[in-house]
Amino acid sequence: MLKPFPVVTLLTDFGLQDWYVGVMKGVILRINPSAKIIDICEKIAPQDVFGAAYVLFSAYKYFPEQTVHVVVVDPGVGSDRKIVCLKTKEHIFLAPDNGILSFIIAHEKPEIMVEVTNKKYFLPEVSNTFHGRDIFAPVAGHILNGVKIENFGNKISKIKEITLPSPVLLSNGILTAEIIYIDGFGNLITNIDCNVLGKVGFDINLTKGRFSILAGNNEIAGTSKSYADVNDGDLLAIFGSSGYLEIAVNKGNAKELLNLKK
Amino acid sequence: MLKPFPVVTLLTDFGLQDWYVGVMKGVILRINPSAKIIDICEKIAPQDVFGAAYVLFSAYKYFPEQTVHVVVVDPGVGSDRKIVCLKTKEHIFLAPDNGILSFIIAHEKPEIMVEVTNKKYFLPEVSNTFHGRDIFAPVAGHILNGVKIENFGNKISKIKEITLPSPVLLSNGILTAEIIYIDGFGNLITNIDCNVLGKVGFDINLTKGRFSILAGNNEIAGTSKSYADVNDGDLLAIFGSSGYLEIAVNKGNAKELLNLKK
Amino acid sequence: MLKPFPVVTLLTDFGLQDWYVGVMKGVILRINPSAKIIDICEKIAPQDVFGAAYVLFSAYKYFPEQTVHVVVVDPGVGSDRKIVCLKTKEHIFLAPDNGILSFIIAHEKPEIMVEVTNKKYFLPEVSNTFHGRDIFAPVAGHILNGVKIENFGNKISKIKEITLPSPVLLSNGILTAEIIYIDGFGNLITNIDCNVLGKVGFDINLTKGRFSILAGNNEIAGTSKSYADVNDGDLLAIFGSSGYLEIAVNKGNAKELLNLKK
Repeated sequence: MLKPFPVVTLLTDFGLQDWYVGVMKGVILRINPSAKIIDICEKIAPQDVFGAAYVLFSAYKYFPEQTVHVVVVDPGVGSDRKIVCLKTKEHIFLAPDNGILSFIIAHEKPEIMVEVTNKKYFLPEVSNTFHGRDIFAPVAGHILNGVKIENFGNKISKIKEITLPSPVLLSNGILTAEIIYIDGFGNLITNIDCNVLGKVGFDINLTKGRFSILAGNNEIAGTSKSYADVNDGDLLAIFGSSGYLEIAVNKGNAKELLNLKK
Repeated sequence: MLKPFPVVTLLTDFGLQDWYVGVMKGVILRINPSAKIIDICEKIAPQDVFGAAYVLFSAYKYFPEQTVHVVVVDPGVGSDRKIVCLKTKEHIFLAPDNGILSFIIAHEKPEIMVEVTNKKYFLPEVSNTFHGRDIFAPVAGHILNGVKIENFGNKISKIKEITLPSPVLLSNGILTAEIIYIDGFGNLITNIDCNVLGKVGFDINLTKGRFSILAGNNEIAGTSKSYADVNDGDLLAIFGSSGYLEIAVNKGNAKELLNLKK
Repeated sequence: MLKPFPVVTLLTDFGLQDWYVGVMKGVILRINPSAKIIDICEKIAPQDVFGAAYVLFSAYKYFPEQTVHVVVVDPGVGSDRKIVCLKTKEHIFLAPDNGILSFIIAHEKPEIMVEVTNKKYFLPEVSNTFHGRDIFAPVAGHILNGVKIENFGNKISKIKEITLPSPVLLSNGILTAEIIYIDGFGNLITNIDCNVLGKVGFDINLTKGRFSILAGNNEIAGTSKSYADVNDGDLLAIFGSSGYLEIAVNKGNAKELLNLKK
């Protein structure tokens, strides 16, 4: 049954200084006038496929069932890269086949995956530079209208995956990790997942452990429960809202304080 | 009676470079699929409670009756700061109890105020770092669904207030004022309220008066009616759209010209 | 017949750091609670009427029929500049009369144009600094409600136009062009329109031609079909998604590479 207010999200690197995102919304509304169009984020760093993959993973499950997630971080636009549509139990994803759905397929079982090729659902003229407007937006509109994703092209069994960096446990008991995302508050999000740590026997509630932040030789003693557990301006480590360990500064900016990068 | 398209506004310091605002919207739509979600502003300077208080005050009354205003500028997230919900005759406000509603309660009589504690209306898992997603958004969704705010927790009679800076009239007839907000055009908004000035006998339409901008020793002769009253690039003083005196430059940027700060 | 979900777009230089755009949406929803309000772009450079005119032209035709396009880049606010409302076969435009609709009237035949003066459709109090809130938003709401634009004021036969720069063909066969827009990816959009070139006998699919980018003495041999036609970091020339020739860098930023300006 069609939803009265179907939801579609947009996640792009188009930024908000041009008309690109607005036009995608116009195209969707031409096809489905009752669509609820929500920006997950339009300010992914240009062509940062990994960053977009992480943002999508952090966000998608908070949206209603049957939400269509449209992801357009697409450095290969106009080349022979594929466009894929993937349906899990609760959500539908439409994206270039460049690894941007890697976190999703690491955590969800796709019910069906297709390569999107059926021009019947595209705009009549498809440019080589703006598939967001000419392919992704109209296809999303048709999904919201109830078109089955089987109609968009042939089923496929495999999509491109990026290797997700895992923390490495060295023989001396030190866990080396990477910063995988830096948010707008300057919080440094690492690839240390609280679920994974639990499985290898770490106690994530243990606050007496010891973390060495390698760069800059800063040491943080254990994890905090909230930013306010430490004094203003002090460093802390905390399992953030997506379940990953992050390095933060209470009422401050860890990125600027530590001068660390991804 | 429930509105067919209930309106909820968001006012945060989350910025638009991450997924935080998008996820809040997803949570709201899961609970109330017909919600109209409007960004008042998501780019409040990080942890600038006063700035957010001023922005909320400038904006709220232009929204429809029964709008739910969700304000999440919340440096104390995860500490023991309270969350409050407040209803006036026309609007509902949901915010951390950190003074962010100070302008509202200075101008409106609350019909009821509650401390929000009832976990029944939160997400099942509440993080210590992202109450916007885990508490504010779902509670807002339930308000839009018609849940009475009495259900969220105990009534309270007092919330935290920030002292709002008032201009001071010195014995020599000089009024000293502060810049309380600088907008994106570089307009410097002072705490001189046209209503207050009127009450103490100033004639705000008098254009022969004389204002001394103290910093930088700039003098502006009287108030203008519109930016175009002075030449391009010239300074002017004008009662702005929120009723406060602002210092501006016709087709220019007063902040950059004068190098003034809040 | 009224649309169940009428669409209104906003195109302004208000930016997103203040409450200005949010308040316009509040005013529209007070008047038409079912409006779909879409941002085409709120980050036009302050007072850049030409840039806004180009953005509007690139975007408007992708929106549903009967969309109301509200354009507020308005350096003359509060002066005696007019506000105009213009209806074409498919769209309605509401804007200050400062040339911002020049691209539209160069490509579409207006069915009716009026000067907007009828205060009945404005907010009760009209400031001299924020007509977006006090005039444009409420008038747009009333259009969405079905008010005929004849009701807003007297018909006019002419609106202000900006001369749109055309490329010039020199006697030595060199075409000199201008950069008219630089997008957020750093793509340099010129005033060379693929339709116009075709009419004067150029073959836009000819990839053996030769383009001289004058500034910086860079030469690009012919046009590409997609960004990926050249190596990463290499310059290319391509007819972009709006039909104009643009200078770009595959996975890079032409603005930064060439240090060119409009």
